[in-house]
Amino acid sequence: MILIKIGGGIQINWKYIAEDISSLVKLGEEVIVVHGANGQVQNLSESLGLEQKFITSPSGHVSRYTDEKTMDILTMVYSGLVNKKIVARLQSFGVNAIGLTGADGRIWQGKRKENILSLEKGKTKLIKDSLTGFVTNINHNLLNLLLEKDFVPVLTIPAITDKGELINVDNDRAIAIMVRDMKIKTLVSLFEAPGLLKDVLDDKSVIKNISKENLDKYLEENQGRMKKKLLGLQESFNNGLEVAYFGDGRIKNPITRAMKGEGTKIE
Amino acid sequence: MILIKIGGGIQINWKYIAEDISSLVKLGEEVIVVHGANGQVQNLSESLGLEQKFITSPSGHVSRYTDEKTMDILTMVYSGLVNKKIVARLQSFGVNAIGLTGADGRIWQGKRKENILSLEKGKTKLIKDSLTGFVTNINHNLLNLLLEKDFVPVLTIPAITDKGELINVDNDRAIAIMVRDMKIKTLVSLFEAPGLLKDVLDDKSVIKNISKENLDKYLEENQGRMKKKLLGLQESFNNGLEVAYFGDGRIKNPITRAMKGEGTKIE
Repeated sequence: MILIKIGGGIQINWKYIAEDISSLVKLGEEVIVVHGANGQVQNLSESLGLEQKFITSPSGHVSRYTDEKTMDILTMVYSGLVNKKIVARLQSFGVNAIGLTGADGRIWQGKRKENILSLEKGKTKLIKDSLTGFVTNINHNLLNLLLEKDFVPVLTIPAITDKGELINVDNDRAIAIMVRDMKIKTLVSLFEAPGLLKDVLDDKSVIKNISKENLDKYLEENQGRMKKKLLGLQESFNNGLEVAYFGDGRIKNPITRAMKGEGTKIE
Repeated sequence: MILIKIGGGIQINWKYIAEDISSLVKLGEEVIVVHGANGQVQNLSESLGLEQKFITSPSGHVSRYTDEKTMDILTMVYSGLVNKKIVARLQSFGVNAIGLTGADGRIWQGKRKENILSLEKGKTKLIKDSLTGFVTNINHNLLNLLLEKDFVPVLTIPAITDKGELINVDNDRAIAIMVRDMKIKTLVSLFEAPGLLKDVLDDKSVIKNISKENLDKYLEENQGRMKKKLLGLQESFNNGLEVAYFGDGRIKNPITRAMKGEGTKIE
């Protein structure tokens, strides 16, 4: 079983990804896809004239401020527009994809963070209406049932709380819980770069191999989204993951090339 | 097995519907939900400053002109925003709902209408880029698999063609194909009226009983959405449906009350 995580950038080439998944499935491989949609959320927010709001935690960690209106936009774009276009693309390559959110069949059950501290102009503010949280457990029975019947689940936010609230969660940390509950050993993560870079401005500076024990060092050196990816990855390794491949989501055969070592291999 | 069709009006009370479905499921009933989202599409289109376009066929039948941009809006609202809110609402009442579009696992496989005639200012125009079509067959294996495991499938547009195109289809006609392929005998259809009315302006003029042989008469007397519902219903009866209940989607216990005969019973 391979878990394939695809970033939400608009340069990601879903045709190439779908083609590659189609080859893997024909070889009998079980595949689960988890995707983002950040680029499209930016586009829709701009069309609607909505400002995207972010929270800076006291430790300097920046995350989206997901009020109710933002949650609606995320749900429309992630689970509607983008998820169904991916499903259609996979179907056009003969892959029987089934698009699901964490709320469907409680695949990603989670908890809402009821209090969030935000640093604004030097002052700490308490935010109580943010619909963000984290995944605590997986409906692995449903996912296994679908995999047994040769479906390819295509997963995205929102997750759901035990009260039935839709919440925004971090994909990389949700994946760590999937790794734990479904005993996943292999992760391929594709984004808009050829791998983990020594110098973010130099596409040729791909770090070929990283030992999972050395992830701490890279956590210190990276910021923003990449730091989040690495944090989630570290949690995945703690939960039993054996190998992760970071690769370029813009090129032909992105998955097989990442797995052949063209990007960054972490183990 | 009961197929419950819910209209897309904004007055529909999903709390009451979820509560009622929860009771049915506890009694061991298998339930499939098919829903619309028309009211919310209007809201989003207005927020985006988009004009909704319609086509009038030479015979006077009015339908949505679904160009690519419109299809995106429909996908966001039907399969994103509205589908996931319904799933969350059902989950909050303990119903293990799973939201799916016709594209997921090819549940609603269909054909695109490649040429549509439109009457504009007295002239007939050929429209070739409309992403509308109709459902030809159902992935009943997937739906039966989910029902066996006590999930409640919550279905909506888009459907998918064999080329992997997302298409807009008429829910009532899609239901007729589900009736045929899944041998469904009972349909409950809820909308923003207490049943089929003799006089559309008088909520007290509910027609209590209709024989399916007399549907032609009501088809002549009704227009617009209700006419479409009745056309779909006639096809459902031709495909083996035994009884349909039209009821009010705004009241408490809407399903059980419709089935007790408070709305319109057609058989």
